[in-house]
Amino acid sequence: MQAQQPIAVPATGVAAQEFGLTPCEGGVCAAKGMRAAGVVAGLRGDPNRRDLALVAANKTCVCAATFTQNRFCAAPVQVSREHVCNGLARAVVLNSGNANASTGEPGIAVARQTAALVAHELGCDEQDVLVGSTGVIGVPLKLDGFRTGVPMACKALANTPQAAHDAAVAVMTTDTVPKESAYTGTIPAGGGAQTTFSVGGFVKGSGMIQPNMATMLSVLSTDAPLSASAARAALKAAVDQTFNKVTVDSDTSTNDTCILFATGCAGGPVIEEDSAAYPAVAAAILCVCEDLARMIAADGEGATKLVTVDVVGARTKADALTVARSIANSPLVKTAIFGHDANWGRVAAAAGKCGVDFCQDNVDIDLLGVPVLRSGLPLPMDEEDMLRRFEGPEVTIAISLGEGEAGERVWTCDLTHEYITINGDYRT
Amino acid sequence: MQAQQPIAVPATGVAAQEFGLTPCEGGVCAAKGMRAAGVVAGLRGDPNRRDLALVAANKTCVCAATFTQNRFCAAPVQVSREHVCNGLARAVVLNSGNANASTGEPGIAVARQTAALVAHELGCDEQDVLVGSTGVIGVPLKLDGFRTGVPMACKALANTPQAAHDAAVAVMTTDTVPKESAYTGTIPAGGGAQTTFSVGGFVKGSGMIQPNMATMLSVLSTDAPLSASAARAALKAAVDQTFNKVTVDSDTSTNDTCILFATGCAGGPVIEEDSAAYPAVAAAILCVCEDLARMIAADGEGATKLVTVDVVGARTKADALTVARSIANSPLVKTAIFGHDANWGRVAAAAGKCGVDFCQDNVDIDLLGVPVLRSGLPLPMDEEDMLRRFEGPEVTIAISLGEGEAGERVWTCDLTHEYITINGDYRT
Repeated sequence: MQAQQPIAVPATGVAAQEFGLTPCEGGVCAAKGMRAAGVVAGLRGDPNRRDLALVAANKTCVCAATFTQNRFCAAPVQVSREHVCNGLARAVVLNSGNANASTGEPGIAVARQTAALVAHELGCDEQDVLVGSTGVIGVPLKLDGFRTGVPMACKALANTPQAAHDAAVAVMTTDTVPKESAYTGTIPAGGGAQTTFSVGGFVKGSGMIQPNMATMLSVLSTDAPLSASAARAALKAAVDQTFNKVTVDSDTSTNDTCILFATGCAGGPVIEEDSAAYPAVAAAILCVCEDLARMIAADGEGATKLVTVDVVGARTKADALTVARSIANSPLVKTAIFGHDANWGRVAAAAGKCGVDFCQDNVDIDLLGVPVLRSGLPLPMDEEDMLRRFEGPEVTIAISLGEGEAGERVWTCDLTHEYITINGDYRT
Repeated sequence: MQAQQPIAVPATGVAAQEFGLTPCEGGVCAAKGMRAAGVVAGLRGDPNRRDLALVAANKTCVCAATFTQNRFCAAPVQVSREHVCNGLARAVVLNSGNANASTGEPGIAVARQTAALVAHELGCDEQDVLVGSTGVIGVPLKLDGFRTGVPMACKALANTPQAAHDAAVAVMTTDTVPKESAYTGTIPAGGGAQTTFSVGGFVKGSGMIQPNMATMLSVLSTDAPLSASAARAALKAAVDQTFNKVTVDSDTSTNDTCILFATGCAGGPVIEEDSAAYPAVAAAILCVCEDLARMIAADGEGATKLVTVDVVGARTKADALTVARSIANSPLVKTAIFGHDANWGRVAAAAGKCGVDFCQDNVDIDLLGVPVLRSGLPLPMDEEDMLRRFEGPEVTIAISLGEGEAGERVWTCDLTHEYITINGDYRT
């Protein structure tokens, strides 16, 4: 028993280091060939609040997307799923304030008409426009605001950090900050040449967050010339490791959507999954998604802490994920963190309740980097030191089940009074 | 589409009516041959707080029990499981303030020694004494308080409503009220005679409540002469339908324990599962458990409402339970109820997220008895009327999935500021 050794968990930032990727400005506009806009369309009845975002490639390009697996899926999800199935798109239009979910055929019609309005302005096919909505469920979405808002947004489209930022702001609901990320790097461009590429994007999401396939609404873009299948593969891999590992409140949205445009404007030959350039681009997509996923957890409704839960020593990755989610979704664990209470007993109870088989006598737990349980037995704890460690913005929990070699990491936040305030008074 | 018909859900109180059972006084002492006590043993360091409960039959009798399935299971659970395996017991001793969980071999030793202290006082075998603990996890439990507390409790043992009440009080932690219930009825006693029998008990439980096999701590007794196997069968059936259908916060305790003593003092021949008297006794056990289960939900930490969730029209009972739990554990549903917000969209989203397959176009939802969704489409809602309905102490949610004939009911409560306050500041 090595009582003083912290549990070994995966290091962070490895992908960026390995491929020489560096963070950059510009969000969803970091990629050449992408433009964005966020405007006040009056959809929310607030003349000072941007509520309509448009993200458009200069021409129709490769596009991949992942969507919610909630059985109640919103009209825009149904329409976008249909429109992206050929692997190509020109633009996505997104509104906040109304989720256009549980709105039946009329809701589908509004989603289609919104896409048509954008297609008309951009001069492209309606099939090449995706749609995203976020906000209240079960309230009919009216087309009116889009009739004036869509042309306004099309005029405002620009390839600037400010335009990307405006789009990120326009999709916010209970988010307290816009969430953007971008990375740049170099990849082989054929004939021994190198080309610079970027991946960037934004996400919104703060409550009803335990994405299943993608998070609430995220738009990513890259100028790397990914093929449609390479774009799908890279997006799916990144989403599985990032957005799908975030939970704010275990509630999966009806509207989760994550869209990746690949404009190809970085130049060079088309990148397939077996191309030399693929790993670096996939790593950049992963970096952006991980940044955005962590931002969602840190901006979870009412959150005061970003919490990272690592499970190691599980028999399978599925077991590790079940235990990690059980800990991350435990209201008792989350309120203890809010209370700066180093109550690892609640971590143990949450791990034990979820049906994954293990022997409590083999379990180790670290809290805030401090070993607190070894082989199922408590270690002496310096409460003063723990209180000091709770002062930081992040909390780490690591648990080793002693059953095997598999591990998973999930991100969450604490559960606070503010979450209750926000959600006890959302519609009114 | 019958837009105005509420969803048909199971009626309540049927079992009591069918078998002519009536509520009565006395809690765990309602059964003849049972005594109880709740004393201040000083285990919690509060000279005004009862913290040690003892429930004892006048002599060793039939006993059945169910325990937590959490992989981290507490020392008293391990000891009690071993002691009850022969289907007989004399007494159970319970303490509040310390769960004696994650305490290793020393914790097991304290649990055994506690049983031995009781056995010595009552003059029975140590094997015939069960142990229960509730409170903080991971803190060593000291035997000291038991050395004086156990003799004190043995002296205080009485077959009175007050003694039963004292025991119910002594196991409270964050509970705001003691929770007791008892029913009485008549059963055939052989040779055409009838005998009166009672079933009663108490439960504690307010947080870390999503029992799996039993709830936090519950002691039940009956004077009906159940055989050991009939006691086990009746207890298991009742617990499955009641305690295992409660969730306060989805957190399963390490200490869940439910114990049924059957003293046989009502007289008459031994009751087996196929005896004429069995259904009435089983019904009474069910009635007591349902009362206590509802009391747990109503007294969920910080709760202002008791919430009943009915799922009907599911393909299987497992599907129905998954959907019901998903709704009952959704923080967004629970905070909406706290906010008196008739936000059925969150109910829909919670139903859709849990992996159970259904078609959203066939779903009906009622909130507070009012049809709000039919065939996946919202009905007009009178917000004023909904606000009035939210004034009551109970909230009902019913959802029909339109997939089959199976249904399940679970009980929960709303999620409030007070839950955060209680659990953000529990240990300190």
